[in-house]
Amino acid sequence: MRLHLVHAHPETDSFVAAMRDTVIEAAQAAGAEVTLSDLYAMGFNPVLSAADFSERENPEHLTYALEQRHNFKKRTLAPDIQSEAEKILAADVLGFTFPLFWFGAPAILKGWIDRVFLSGPFFGGRRIYGNGGLAGKRAFAAISMGARPDMFGPDAIFGELESGMLRHFLHGSLGYVGLTVHKPFFAHRVPYVDAAERTSMLALLAEYVRTLEQQPLIEMPDLSRFDERMIPIRGNG
Amino acid sequence: MRLHLVHAHPETDSFVAAMRDTVIEAAQAAGAEVTLSDLYAMGFNPVLSAADFSERENPEHLTYALEQRHNFKKRTLAPDIQSEAEKILAADVLGFTFPLFWFGAPAILKGWIDRVFLSGPFFGGRRIYGNGGLAGKRAFAAISMGARPDMFGPDAIFGELESGMLRHFLHGSLGYVGLTVHKPFFAHRVPYVDAAERTSMLALLAEYVRTLEQQPLIEMPDLSRFDERMIPIRGNG
Repeated sequence: MRLHLVHAHPETDSFVAAMRDTVIEAAQAAGAEVTLSDLYAMGFNPVLSAADFSERENPEHLTYALEQRHNFKKRTLAPDIQSEAEKILAADVLGFTFPLFWFGAPAILKGWIDRVFLSGPFFGGRRIYGNGGLAGKRAFAAISMGARPDMFGPDAIFGELESGMLRHFLHGSLGYVGLTVHKPFFAHRVPYVDAAERTSMLALLAEYVRTLEQQPLIEMPDLSRFDERMIPIRGNG
Repeated sequence: MRLHLVHAHPETDSFVAAMRDTVIEAAQAAGAEVTLSDLYAMGFNPVLSAADFSERENPEHLTYALEQRHNFKKRTLAPDIQSEAEKILAADVLGFTFPLFWFGAPAILKGWIDRVFLSGPFFGGRRIYGNGGLAGKRAFAAISMGARPDMFGPDAIFGELESGMLRHFLHGSLGYVGLTVHKPFFAHRVPYVDAAERTSMLALLAEYVRTLEQQPLIEMPDLSRFDERMIPIRGNG
């Protein structure tokens, strides 16, 4: 297994940094080759712009997805985008460690998706979900938060977590490009727990990584139930 | 009405820039005072870090929310955060114009929320949703996308838009801090429409802004249905 891990936390002494180290150690112990993009350590630029392209299919007006396709083919993407895209394409499994900020990824990771998930090799037109460019690869995330587990669910204060608050990330980003997405590892109440509980959560995370292939999957839309315009096909029954 | 508009698009000739101008003109024509944060033009830094605080309640370990509260009180926040927070606190209505990237805000706007939505004045503990720090203010967004309207809905390829893919933004970010959130203005299929249709969409947006107070609201959790630990209160019926 080749795992590419993307880590987004500013502090080196954080629980999320310990989750990063735990993921790497557990994956390596299981025989995986691991590469790491530590976005804060790299000073990754999350703000997409015309500067991401050294050639232009259309010099008059920027259509970002169009220039992603053109510049990927010509190998004229900004070097940081090219390098991140190559690490993803070389991996079997894409992993993430980050704290939940506003029910999503920290901006440095959101912008990594904005810039690196390339129209062309990753998705395009009807090449989404099961037909996406990364189909055959798997993904997982280990996510810390302050909230309790009982704050999520159909009647809970924040509603569903995986299919609700995190739908934009799990379905709309990872699933969209064809990744098979495991249910995330969630570390709850992180600011409020003691050292023993943190150690215990990290042991559970190591077990999650060791047994990743057995971890349940997030259900994605089944494209066979949609026509070529992505309209649901009505049954006869 | 005092409107603070937050705009996130890299290109000055974009449809989203035209939406920004349309919002400003329609609001001013209705007598509003308008302030603008054009995040790309400002070179806004979306990446939160310890550098956001010139004082520290806890110099040993960074707990971002704790230092937001401490530094807001001491007026020692980074000047860009202080300035954005003051613009929001001075406004009656907070508006957004942005393109949908990966079913969320562009990273430059996600990071504006990460850094500027301050624990303390904006939210904290049980001060969320209807009890949030911005309760009494309203919010709206004008959002462009490539997708068609029929790609969203309970059986559609992307599921629900407002309560699903955008739940993290509408509920989890804007509603969370107490804002009363109007249903957004969505401009669909923007890369594929002609100039006449763009003009027509901008006219609809101007009408949306003129009639903002009559625009329907996004339903938020009713805190009276939850106890002080945010657990649903079971009825007797």
